Amino acid sequence: MLESFLNILESVLGPPGAGLPLHEPEFRGKEWDYVKECLDTGWVSSVGRFVDEFESAVAKFTGAKHAIATVNGTTALQVALKLSGVRPGDEVIVPALSFVATANAVAHAGAIPHFVDSCPETLGMDPLALKEYLSSIIENTADGIRNRNTGRRIAAVVPMHTFGHPVDLPKLLEVCETLRIPMVEDAAESLGSMIQGKMTGTFGLLGILSFNGNKVVTTGGGGAILTNDTTLAKRAKHLTTTAKVPHRWEFFHDETGFNFRLPNLNAALGCAQLEQLPDFLRRKRLLAERYRSAFSSSSYFSFSVEPKNFTSNYWLNSVKLKQASMQVRNEVLNSANSSGYHCRPAWNLLNTLPMYQQAPQSPIPVATMLESSLINLPSSPKLVVKDR
Amino acid sequence: MLESFLNILESVLGPPGAGLPLHEPEFRGKEWDYVKECLDTGWVSSVGRFVDEFESAVAKFTGAKHAIATVNGTTALQVALKLSGVRPGDEVIVPALSFVATANAVAHAGAIPHFVDSCPETLGMDPLALKEYLSSIIENTADGIRNRNTGRRIAAVVPMHTFGHPVDLPKLLEVCETLRIPMVEDAAESLGSMIQGKMTGTFGLLGILSFNGNKVVTTGGGGAILTNDTTLAKRAKHLTTTAKVPHRWEFFHDETGFNFRLPNLNAALGCAQLEQLPDFLRRKRLLAERYRSAFSSSSYFSFSVEPKNFTSNYWLNSVKLKQASMQVRNEVLNSANSSGYHCRPAWNLLNTLPMYQQAPQSPIPVATMLESSLINLPSSPKLVVKDR
Repeated sequence: MLESFLNILESVLGPPGAGLPLHEPEFRGKEWDYVKECLDTGWVSSVGRFVDEFESAVAKFTGAKHAIATVNGTTALQVALKLSGVRPGDEVIVPALSFVATANAVAHAGAIPHFVDSCPETLGMDPLALKEYLSSIIENTADGIRNRNTGRRIAAVVPMHTFGHPVDLPKLLEVCETLRIPMVEDAAESLGSMIQGKMTGTFGLLGILSFNGNKVVTTGGGGAILTNDTTLAKRAKHLTTTAKVPHRWEFFHDETGFNFRLPNLNAALGCAQLEQLPDFLRRKRLLAERYRSAFSSSSYFSFSVEPKNFTSNYWLNSVKLKQASMQVRNEVLNSANSSGYHCRPAWNLLNTLPMYQQAPQSPIPVATMLESSLINLPSSPKLVVKDR
Repeated sequence: MLESFLNILESVLGPPGAGLPLHEPEFRGKEWDYVKECLDTGWVSSVGRFVDEFESAVAKFTGAKHAIATVNGTTALQVALKLSGVRPGDEVIVPALSFVATANAVAHAGAIPHFVDSCPETLGMDPLALKEYLSSIIENTADGIRNRNTGRRIAAVVPMHTFGHPVDLPKLLEVCETLRIPMVEDAAESLGSMIQGKMTGTFGLLGILSFNGNKVVTTGGGGAILTNDTTLAKRAKHLTTTAKVPHRWEFFHDETGFNFRLPNLNAALGCAQLEQLPDFLRRKRLLAERYRSAFSSSSYFSFSVEPKNFTSNYWLNSVKLKQASMQVRNEVLNSANSSGYHCRPAWNLLNTLPMYQQAPQSPIPVATMLESSLINLPSSPKLVVKDR
């Protein structure tokens, strides 16, 4: 079994050489031109054209009315939650199967993550299970929906698009709208993923992206808040830039803001990266198709394809063990990593981490099964040669 | 008077041309080489040699045992406060005369800023006034020093080195040590400033630096936590990098961490900048000396020199109106800015901002006087030609 896994990887990727990373960025566009312009003009920080241009380009690509650049996805989500109405002491519904930042952003906003299960097809929040679960624990009050067990407000629902595969946003939105709970989308992993031509990150009241070094495009470190609400967009910009009221020289700040703006230097890198995004996505689809085909006859592994009718950016390709087993998963990971193919598991479920074990949670059977069966595969666009 | 101000500026700086900024970075070292190395290797984010090298170089320059790079000074201070023992609901002593980040970092740590006055010589916290004030409001309890009026713990004292001028750290430390309150130094503005050969930022339990675009050296956006305590340094690194426990592929995070690490791309810029820091400091002293001499015979303005026996990095040069007056200050600022010399006032006092008006505070007579008399002058190192 281990041998068959390595053979399939080699058939798709070739020999690992000095080691094949999980996801490497590629800088073959105008990165150096733009970054050099920052150095030559001295505009590396809060002044310069690239932050505005990056925000416009992100908005244009995603179809969001507004994009506000931030230092990373975690801080973007923290601010988006605050803007959605989350207050300290509230609960926020998040998937147990996610990167820790999803829950940390909730905690940084002063709220409590409330973990729910995933569905096997999308790897993300299951609309039906969510509806049923929430219906069983909530009560309507003058101040919104409350968790009957804890007495706390349930202030937002934060679906996350695991490895880039879109969750069922239309159905999740229906649940959120029926219950009148705002949806804030954690689209950190899914830039370019779509549902019926509409980009993930633009379905909720607000959405967020990440441009970390391991993402489809990178700014070194960076993120963005997306929204179609012009008032929220203005507040997002204001809050992430120390809440300074514009003035030629006066320093008047009208609320407790954050220092979360993306430096111009990083935005310059992002502008060049975004120009190549369609090509990155094209090559990532090609790579996914090669994996799919190579794993199609495997007895042990099934390749995670995009959910029916949805378009994934295939940020991180993954297979599932047909028979979930933590021990087998770890053997596969050990063997792959030792051979130079940098594979990794899904994250430890967030509801099992020490700081979140006491947090409210629904039953998590599907995510628990997924945790012991998912294996991510090397997914850099450069694994598909540019002109093939 | 306005004319004499402009004449003095022109005698030091020459004609303003298209406009002379308050503080511009200068990239004439190895910035290109290092940044290009990031792009060529693909290491712009969490992987790469520059974060480690930058941290080593910052530690070496400041004499701190450890330096931990962060996305900016505000987040560095937030984490330093947490590490010093500040808990939600505590009070933290900060100067009313500071950039808003000093108070915001306290708020982001869940604590309440408690504002105190400055002294005219250092522009920062006055040790004598602080001692007297604290003695009048505190009580000793089993859980530390408490504010008798609010019942809250006073968990830290955060002096800030205004415009780079060192506050009287030895005397402030004495006060803090007597009262057993940790000192956390906000040295965001004072990289290179010294007291008896020891760098600001290294006197307290922890200190922080900023590498924002307007600082002596820049990483675009960036900051650092300084400490001589190895345990705190390890915790600082852990907390600012999502509290992930190192493992070849497992994602186990053992506490609620932050995503505050500095990207490798920005650290690369910082490495090149630090190599030039001694030269920047030399030229900034030369510029300060020119200002001092040019303003020495002025009837209206007195140049702010470094406090006796202390060495300032002269980050931002400033003059004080001999007769404090908000109206005159604003006339001078209007006239200077309209003429192309980008001067600015000190910050609006933090205790007067809407979100901090209700915060506890001592009487603030000196800072109030300083607010209506301080005017910052263009201070870029490039205003002194490199080889003069």
